Amino acid sequence: MDSTVVGVLGGGQLGRMFAEAAARLNVTVRFLDVGDNTPAKQITNVPASVAGPQHVDGAFADAEKIAELAKQVDVLTVEIEHVDADQLQAVLDQGLVKAVHPSPATIKLIQDKYQQKVHLQRENVPVVDFVAIENGNVDAAIEKFGLPLMLKSRTQAYDGRGNYVLRSKGDIPAALEALSGDKRELYAEKWAPFDKEVAVMVVRSVEGQVVAYTAVETIHENSICHRVYAPLRDAIPGLDERAREVAERAIATFSGAGIFGVELFLMPDGALLINEIAPRPHNSGHYTQEASDTTQFENHLRAVVGLPLGSTALKVPAAAMINILGLADLSKDRDAIAKTLAMAKRSLSVPGTTVHLYGKEGCRPGRKMGHINIVGESDAEVAERVQVLLDELAIAKESAKAGTPWDTAAADARAQATRATGGKTSSDFSHPHPLVGVIMGSDSDLPVMLPAAQILKQFNVPFELTIVSAHRTPDRMKTYANDARARGLRVIIAGAGGAAHLPGMVAAQTPLPVIGVPVKGSTLDGVDSLHSIVQMPRGVPVASVAINNGMNAGLLAVRMLGTGIPTYMDKLEAYQREMERGVLDKVDRLRKQGWDYQVPGK
Amino acid sequence: MDSTVVGVLGGGQLGRMFAEAAARLNVTVRFLDVGDNTPAKQITNVPASVAGPQHVDGAFADAEKIAELAKQVDVLTVEIEHVDADQLQAVLDQGLVKAVHPSPATIKLIQDKYQQKVHLQRENVPVVDFVAIENGNVDAAIEKFGLPLMLKSRTQAYDGRGNYVLRSKGDIPAALEALSGDKRELYAEKWAPFDKEVAVMVVRSVEGQVVAYTAVETIHENSICHRVYAPLRDAIPGLDERAREVAERAIATFSGAGIFGVELFLMPDGALLINEIAPRPHNSGHYTQEASDTTQFENHLRAVVGLPLGSTALKVPAAAMINILGLADLSKDRDAIAKTLAMAKRSLSVPGTTVHLYGKEGCRPGRKMGHINIVGESDAEVAERVQVLLDELAIAKESAKAGTPWDTAAADARAQATRATGGKTSSDFSHPHPLVGVIMGSDSDLPVMLPAAQILKQFNVPFELTIVSAHRTPDRMKTYANDARARGLRVIIAGAGGAAHLPGMVAAQTPLPVIGVPVKGSTLDGVDSLHSIVQMPRGVPVASVAINNGMNAGLLAVRMLGTGIPTYMDKLEAYQREMERGVLDKVDRLRKQGWDYQVPGK
Repeated sequence: MDSTVVGVLGGGQLGRMFAEAAARLNVTVRFLDVGDNTPAKQITNVPASVAGPQHVDGAFADAEKIAELAKQVDVLTVEIEHVDADQLQAVLDQGLVKAVHPSPATIKLIQDKYQQKVHLQRENVPVVDFVAIENGNVDAAIEKFGLPLMLKSRTQAYDGRGNYVLRSKGDIPAALEALSGDKRELYAEKWAPFDKEVAVMVVRSVEGQVVAYTAVETIHENSICHRVYAPLRDAIPGLDERAREVAERAIATFSGAGIFGVELFLMPDGALLINEIAPRPHNSGHYTQEASDTTQFENHLRAVVGLPLGSTALKVPAAAMINILGLADLSKDRDAIAKTLAMAKRSLSVPGTTVHLYGKEGCRPGRKMGHINIVGESDAEVAERVQVLLDELAIAKESAKAGTPWDTAAADARAQATRATGGKTSSDFSHPHPLVGVIMGSDSDLPVMLPAAQILKQFNVPFELTIVSAHRTPDRMKTYANDARARGLRVIIAGAGGAAHLPGMVAAQTPLPVIGVPVKGSTLDGVDSLHSIVQMPRGVPVASVAINNGMNAGLLAVRMLGTGIPTYMDKLEAYQREMERGVLDKVDRLRKQGWDYQVPGK
Repeated sequence: MDSTVVGVLGGGQLGRMFAEAAARLNVTVRFLDVGDNTPAKQITNVPASVAGPQHVDGAFADAEKIAELAKQVDVLTVEIEHVDADQLQAVLDQGLVKAVHPSPATIKLIQDKYQQKVHLQRENVPVVDFVAIENGNVDAAIEKFGLPLMLKSRTQAYDGRGNYVLRSKGDIPAALEALSGDKRELYAEKWAPFDKEVAVMVVRSVEGQVVAYTAVETIHENSICHRVYAPLRDAIPGLDERAREVAERAIATFSGAGIFGVELFLMPDGALLINEIAPRPHNSGHYTQEASDTTQFENHLRAVVGLPLGSTALKVPAAAMINILGLADLSKDRDAIAKTLAMAKRSLSVPGTTVHLYGKEGCRPGRKMGHINIVGESDAEVAERVQVLLDELAIAKESAKAGTPWDTAAADARAQATRATGGKTSSDFSHPHPLVGVIMGSDSDLPVMLPAAQILKQFNVPFELTIVSAHRTPDRMKTYANDARARGLRVIIAGAGGAAHLPGMVAAQTPLPVIGVPVKGSTLDGVDSLHSIVQMPRGVPVASVAINNGMNAGLLAVRMLGTGIPTYMDKLEAYQREMERGVLDKVDRLRKQGWDYQVPGK
């Protein structure tokens, strides 16, 4: 596809997944890393038709080795930012390679997290407030931002290493010792009590075009990325667009091509502040392998060799990623690997999951051994699948902590019993990831609306049920309608009687389909409600069902969801066959028992 | 994940993609094939921690080499069925391996296409009628089945080689010469004038569990698989289930584990006949890489090492695959590779496409060099994306045929202009892959229903528009409703006046959501139509909109589709903003021009 030979500094898991993408496009890649059996080198042979040796054996920070690699390739890129950026500039200046992506200047700028933030602030990209620490004078920073305060190393920091949370002035000596052991410079960040951590992958072409992937939520544990959920859900309309816009704007300020990971904080007031940027494929973008049109690795490859950027669209409704982190030290626990991989093994029995192991030998606590991508028809289905894995992880963690042997037979039995299915609704409370919202003006409408809820429950559709009154809570109605799509709802069922404005007013403030249920009042037989609901003006449709027919509203919602989720259509077909059978049974009964079987005393 | 070392006979593209899956699960694989740079060996290094050499250099039909590989692995499998099955049985009997998958007996049986059919017929699996050819006596077969007649080699046949279509008795000498050059035995098949070619991948576990993937349509060109479309679309409800059932039943009759490709003919009467079975990953299953929960390659791996089988569900609404076949001979046309890869290069600019190249050196006409998988939100979107690629292929084929140089600049310009988007509806005729069906009892309803069509056109929703009358064409209505889902429709809009039975009667015979438009007649102001449409009994919902409001029916259909296709929701949000702006402009006008601006002469 492209004859450019690419050299990569670092041959770990990110390089491995980059190599997968390169193999698919028949682009030759050479890696610089220590040893012949690194995760990336395991799956990459340089074909005999391409001149030169296979890979380079050496450290990715070693200037001589970088030059050696440079001589064998056309373009250099990195899987880690802690490289010798000056040497990258030097090999470029010497003409050993045609290009380095991203540019050495970008890598150098991002390596220093303080300079990174100075740069972003100068470019008017929103960042957390920060200040340099001069000569270990932390007091000035505390005076400026108060406590708690986040103290950070400016360089060589990742996965939470190099960060220290100061809770009191008494912590200062310990913090300085922890962070300054090797004389690295520090800076301080204002404490950011964020609601959520958000990440956006952005790919930048050689020509400077920037394209963001969807925004995702990241869950960190012990400062290490543990889980990712896509797309980002929050009751804030337009949040995804805003996050992508900020991330694209940030990456547009850098030079050179490639993929970038942008980590942001979502603040309680809805503001988005950039936390950190990584100039390479990023853990928060692994979900793209199974969930997006183009993986982050392929887009990085396309960017650095100058091929057109690929679509960043999500191709599934919902996705998640869980890291497989080492749970124990193999030298101390002979079952360390079995425990670490227990969740991955369990995932083989869970639909929609794909395991990516990195081929690392050995195992130690916290080491990234692999990850699992999960896709599904809905947030609810993905959440349920993730929960199965987290349950297994909890057992394995417990076993690792206690140092007990791993009970493989018990784990297999649990896997055998695994039946992860979409959107179970087992209780009569609202589901945390609803697809359907059932609303009514007052609990006096419950008898009419309950059959809708019962149908949704019967079809395993995750739903919520609540009271929203057009006339008594107009603000709540507006918020409910405006936020519905962003929260992941796909259909709204609204019941109303008399003037019956709720369905139409909700439909006016959301793009979701709204089903109206006319509730029969004490006068006019419900015709008033029906006409109020159905006679909407052009431009704003409401789907009206029959008067008092909550059951049909539920069924219509399932039919609507079935347009995107085929399993619901299958269930509806079975339901229709069942209805037919029920009537045919009655036919049979009339035939066999005579038509007076209902007469009392007969 | 599993310490089993797997040996594969054959290291071509199927082995390569098997190796990808094995790498993800850290399962060690060794390949037997000629040379060190085969497609599979390029991306597979056996880690130093696993004893023994890397791969075996030799022919996959070489008994000694098979034994050499067997000694280095735990389980043997194949990427091609033309192997030495007796030797596979021998190494198993000698205890050199724990298992061979599928079993040598299965491979041997499938190798002989005549015996394969005898076996399937004995097991009551439907196959094309066939008869053995004894001593070159073709006349007896012609007498039995008539002409044309399909004459086939019993062994060593693939991609159409080994097949000959007899159109007259005069063809017999040429056929025998073409097929019997190497004294292979022949058999004859009754001519099968099929409607479509269908394929189903089936995976079989060590314990004999069989699980089918979705049925797909395959398009052959010159007897070589060229394109695959998933899911299979046809106006036959339940066809997919039936194809899966036949395929599962066939594979259940074989021994050993692994993935199988089952090719079937869909006959004009709706019957499904098995054409051929492949005991390995198959070209018709490549789409699973981007479109299914688990790829065919990973499921093959899971089956042969005894891990739980993975979900075979489609994770996207629609998918396709196109083979990249060599268009010219590199020794005669220096642009042979550029022409062959032109379609792949173009695909980089088309959303939802993923290129898989096989790393083959050289190029000759018809050689499988790679494939492109395409996914999309709908059949229409996938078809449109495929068309962009076929257009480029046509230009490249023309250039290959003429032997003219490849104009890279022109190809780049075409790619630059590529903007593949979902479901364009540019004419006023029905779309070949509609998502919405707009129906009405008579063309007198057209004025009311036309605004629905205009909205669908405005939102780029592929739709069809036709006349279906409940009272005058009840059979047509039943067929239309019954087939709608199988044909790929997701929403039906039905307009009706007076007694207005059409929407409700259609809803009773399909699981799709049905939108009813009450058409106002000459009496009762349309209230008769409204009540007839909306007052459906419990169990069968119709979504009613306002009297004569075809426009809202169109908008409601887009909202319904938006539950599964987020781009429609985005467009609806923009539409709502536009409506708001339109009204605010009028506000402004009233303010600036006074409220008598509409008075004539003012």
